[in-house]
Amino acid sequence: MRTTQFKVLEEVSLNNPIFIEALPGIGHVGKLAIDHVIDELDATKFVEIYSPYFPPQVLVGEGGIIEDMKNEMYYLKSAGADERDFIFLVGNCQGLSTEGQYELCGSVLDFVESLGAKELYTLGGLATGQPIEGVEGRVLGAATDEASIEMLKEADIEIRSADGGIVGASGLFLGLARLRGMAGFCLMGKTPGYFIDAEAAEAILQKLAILVKLEVSTEELEAKAEEIREMISQAQQMEQEMLSRAMGQQAPQQAQDDLRYIG
Amino acid sequence: MRTTQFKVLEEVSLNNPIFIEALPGIGHVGKLAIDHVIDELDATKFVEIYSPYFPPQVLVGEGGIIEDMKNEMYYLKSAGADERDFIFLVGNCQGLSTEGQYELCGSVLDFVESLGAKELYTLGGLATGQPIEGVEGRVLGAATDEASIEMLKEADIEIRSADGGIVGASGLFLGLARLRGMAGFCLMGKTPGYFIDAEAAEAILQKLAILVKLEVSTEELEAKAEEIREMISQAQQMEQEMLSRAMGQQAPQQAQDDLRYIG
Amino acid sequence: MRTTQFKVLEEVSLNNPIFIEALPGIGHVGKLAIDHVIDELDATKFVEIYSPYFPPQVLVGEGGIIEDMKNEMYYLKSAGADERDFIFLVGNCQGLSTEGQYELCGSVLDFVESLGAKELYTLGGLATGQPIEGVEGRVLGAATDEASIEMLKEADIEIRSADGGIVGASGLFLGLARLRGMAGFCLMGKTPGYFIDAEAAEAILQKLAILVKLEVSTEELEAKAEEIREMISQAQQMEQEMLSRAMGQQAPQQAQDDLRYIG
Amino acid sequence: MRTTQFKVLEEVSLNNPIFIEALPGIGHVGKLAIDHVIDELDATKFVEIYSPYFPPQVLVGEGGIIEDMKNEMYYLKSAGADERDFIFLVGNCQGLSTEGQYELCGSVLDFVESLGAKELYTLGGLATGQPIEGVEGRVLGAATDEASIEMLKEADIEIRSADGGIVGASGLFLGLARLRGMAGFCLMGKTPGYFIDAEAAEAILQKLAILVKLEVSTEELEAKAEEIREMISQAQQMEQEMLSRAMGQQAPQQAQDDLRYIG
Repeated sequence: MRTTQFKVLEEVSLNNPIFIEALPGIGHVGKLAIDHVIDELDATKFVEIYSPYFPPQVLVGEGGIIEDMKNEMYYLKSAGADERDFIFLVGNCQGLSTEGQYELCGSVLDFVESLGAKELYTLGGLATGQPIEGVEGRVLGAATDEASIEMLKEADIEIRSADGGIVGASGLFLGLARLRGMAGFCLMGKTPGYFIDAEAAEAILQKLAILVKLEVSTEELEAKAEEIREMISQAQQMEQEMLSRAMGQQAPQQAQDDLRYIG
Repeated sequence: MRTTQFKVLEEVSLNNPIFIEALPGIGHVGKLAIDHVIDELDATKFVEIYSPYFPPQVLVGEGGIIEDMKNEMYYLKSAGADERDFIFLVGNCQGLSTEGQYELCGSVLDFVESLGAKELYTLGGLATGQPIEGVEGRVLGAATDEASIEMLKEADIEIRSADGGIVGASGLFLGLARLRGMAGFCLMGKTPGYFIDAEAAEAILQKLAILVKLEVSTEELEAKAEEIREMISQAQQMEQEMLSRAMGQQAPQQAQDDLRYIG
Repeated sequence: MRTTQFKVLEEVSLNNPIFIEALPGIGHVGKLAIDHVIDELDATKFVEIYSPYFPPQVLVGEGGIIEDMKNEMYYLKSAGADERDFIFLVGNCQGLSTEGQYELCGSVLDFVESLGAKELYTLGGLATGQPIEGVEGRVLGAATDEASIEMLKEADIEIRSADGGIVGASGLFLGLARLRGMAGFCLMGKTPGYFIDAEAAEAILQKLAILVKLEVSTEELEAKAEEIREMISQAQQMEQEMLSRAMGQQAPQQAQDDLRYIG
Repeated sequence: MRTTQFKVLEEVSLNNPIFIEALPGIGHVGKLAIDHVIDELDATKFVEIYSPYFPPQVLVGEGGIIEDMKNEMYYLKSAGADERDFIFLVGNCQGLSTEGQYELCGSVLDFVESLGAKELYTLGGLATGQPIEGVEGRVLGAATDEASIEMLKEADIEIRSADGGIVGASGLFLGLARLRGMAGFCLMGKTPGYFIDAEAAEAILQKLAILVKLEVSTEELEAKAEEIREMISQAQQMEQEMLSRAMGQQAPQQAQDDLRYIG
C-alpha cells in the first residue's frame, strides 16, 4: 500500500449531510461519543480507509482476530428532529506524520464534499490534568467563523478564546474545511485526560444534540467506557513490549545489541 | 492539501523590492519587529501560504475563531527615505521537516524573485541564556558576501564571525538566496530567549531603519509584546494537553493504553 | 538507491507456497527459528531485497567483510509431511519509517502472491519482561479470520484475545495480506525480551511443525543462539559509538559542537 | 531546492580515479585527515553538492560570511607514487534522513562511476569512550571483499571482525558500492570520540599512504585540529540556542508557549 485507499462498501446519495469527525484522542471523548451514536442509531458503515500513514501494525481483537489500523465512515439518513443526513468519521488511529495528516484530512474532505457536505463538527477532549465532576460546563467550543460561533453560544457552549491550539485531525479538519468554504465547529470536552472519560463524552453529546438535533440515550455510555477500560487493563502487561517494538521492533534492552547483529 | 499553496490575494507590481523574512523564532524577535512594522506602516497583505509541512493543527484565536497555520506576505510601496518597495514574510509557524523547510524557502524565493526582489533580510533572535539590558549592542549581523558585510559595518552592526550556525528559515533563506545570486543580510537580536523580547525587537528595528531607511516608532512595541505575553499566560494551563496531542494525539498517560485500544 | 529493489537470484516456479515471515524482532525469536529451518532443511536463497527504508549503514561481518542491510527470501520445494512449497523472508533489519514499512510489506506481498502464495505465517517474540522457563505454553496465536483461529486451536495454541497490538512487519503483513484475501497466522513466542531466546524459538518451531508439517531438529538451536550472543558480546564495547553515529554521525559529546563546526 | 544538486565547477577527465569519502563524523577523524590532504597536495575543487536532505540552516564563517551546508568534491591528478587520480568527498554535514542518506550516496556513486572510479575508501572515527595515546595501532579496517581485506592486512591494518556496524555515509557508501561491483575499504581511527582528534587522523593518513601511495606531511595536522577546536570553543556559548532552534525554531522555554502563540 503506497497511497491512502478509500474502500467504498456502499454507494450512497446523501442530502446536504453534516460531517462529524471523532477519531481517537484525549480521553477518547470524541470517539466514545460517536461510537455510541453509531450503535444507538444504527448508522451504516459505507467506507473503510487504509493508509500508509497509519501506524505499521495491527491490533489483536476479540477471539484473536486481527484488526487493521483504519478509519471508517458511517452514514445516517433523515435522522434527528431536522431529518438531516449525517456522515461520521471514526477509527482506531490518526495519521502519524505531518504530511500524512494533511493528506488524510484532505482526502476525507474531498470525499465528503463530493457527497454534498457543507458543514462539519470535530469532537475531542481537552486535558485539564485535574479531576472534573459532572457533565455541566464541560464543553468548550471553537469555530471557523463568527456565525458559527453564534450558533455555539445559542447552544450555551462556552467559547474557548485566544487560547492555544487544536492539534491533530480535530484542528486540521477545521482549518482545511474553511479553506474550502465549509463551516466548521469544534466541541472539546474537558477531561482529566488519563482515562476513558464517559462523562466528557456525555457532555459533548448533550451539546451536539442541541446543535444538530440528534438525540441519543447516554445510559449505555458508561458501560461502553467500562468495557474499553477492561480491555485496556487486560492488555496492560504487554504494553512495554508494544512500545519497545514501535521503537525499532525490539525490546529496549535489545535495541543496541540488535543494531550490531550479524543476520 | 498535498503541496504548498500560494493564495495570491492581490496581483502587485513591485519595483526592485527588498524582501524581509520574520517568521517566528527565539524570543519572537523578528516576528515582533515586523508584525509591528506592518501595523505601523499599514502594509498590505497580498499572499497567504498554506503547506502540508506546517504543523497539523489550528490555533484558537480571539472569540473562538480558529486560525490556520500559515505564512503571509505583505507589501509596502515607495516606503522609507529611499522610497523603496518592500515584501514582508510573517506567519505563525515555520515548516516542520527538513525537506519541508527547503521546499517552503525555495518556493518563497521563486515567488519574490518573480516580483523583482534581489536582496533580502532575515531577522531573528540569538539566545544568550542570560539577562540582557537595554537596546544598545544587541544586534549581531551576518551576510552572504563581503560587500554586504561592509554595509552592516557601516550601520555599526557587530559582525558574528566563525561562530555557529543560523538554523531554520532565517539561515536557509540566506543560503538558498545566495545560490540564486541574491544578496542577503541576517540581523540577530540577542535575547535571553525565554520570553517575548520587545527590546531585542526594538534593537533590530533601529538597525533595520539605518539599513533600509524604513523608520517606525517603537513605542507600541512593548505594548504589543505585553499583549502576546498575556495571551500566552492564559493559555499556559492547557500546554500539557497540546504537547501530548502533538506527540500522538493523546495525553501521555493515555498514549500507551491507546496503542492497544480496540476501536 | 531510491526505491526498494528485488534482486532475483533464481526464477522459481512454486506450487501454492506457504509464506513465512521471520524478520528480526524481540528476542530474535522468529529470526532464530527460521534461520535455523533454512540451515537444517537447506533452503535455497532466491531473492535479495535492498531498500532506502533500511538503516543507512552496513554491518561488519566475519573477517571484516561488510554486510549490507537487506532482507532475503529462501524457498523449499515439496517439503514436510504434506510436500508443500515454502517461501521464507529473513534479514538483518526491518524498514525504519512508517511509510517504508508499508512499502516494503506491500512489495513483498506483491512478489509472493505472484508466486502463488495464498497463506502466510508471521513469527515473533512477545516480551513479558520476566523470566520464563521451558518451552511449554510459550506460544500465543492470532490470525486474520475465524477459520484460521480454529486451526491454531487445533494445534493447541493459546489465542491472544482483545489484547494490544502486533507492531512492525509481523503485524502489518497480516493486515495487508487479509486486505488481499490471503489467510494469515501470527505465532508469538513469550520471551523475557532481553536476550536471544532459543527456547522461545524452539517453542515456535514445535507449533509451526504441527501447523505446516515442517519438522526440524531443534538441537542446534541453542548453539546458534549462543553463537549470536558471543558475537553481540564482542561488539558490546562499541555500542555507544554506533548509537552516537546513528544520532547524527557524531559522539554525543560532539553533537552540539559539530552543529557549529565550520567545515 | 527540491532535489539534490550537483554544481559542476569544472569538467574533468580522470583515469581510473580512487574515490575517498571523508564526511564529518566521530572525532572529525576522516574529515580532518582529508581536509589536510586537500590543503597539502593542493587538490582542486570541481563539484559542490546541495541537498534538501542537508540540515536546514547555514553556518557563520570567518568575517560573518555565511556558509551553506554542502558537500564538495576535489580531484588530484597523477598523484602519489603510483601517479593515480583521486576524487575526495568532503563537506560540513551528512544527509539527515534515512532516505536522504541513500539518495545522496547513490547520487555521488553515479557521479564518480561516470568519472571511472572503481574503488573507494571511506574514512571515519571509531569511538572508544576512553583515552588513547599515540598513533600506533589506532586504525581498524573493513572491506567489501576478501581480496580487499588482504590488501588491508598487507598494510598491517587490524581487521574489525564480526563486530557491530558502520553507520552513516562511511558504511552506506561501502554497501551501495559493492552492489555496483566496486571494491571498497573502510579505515576507522580509534578515538575517545569527544574531541577533534588529530592523532587518529594522523594514524588514518599513515595507513592511507601505504594503501594508495599518497604521502603527506602530517605536521600541520595538530595545528589544524587546534584551529577547529578554538572555533568551536568560541561558539560554545551559543550552543544552547542552536540546539533549541533546531528543535522547533525556539528556545526550550519558549517551545510550549509558542505552540499556542496567536501570530
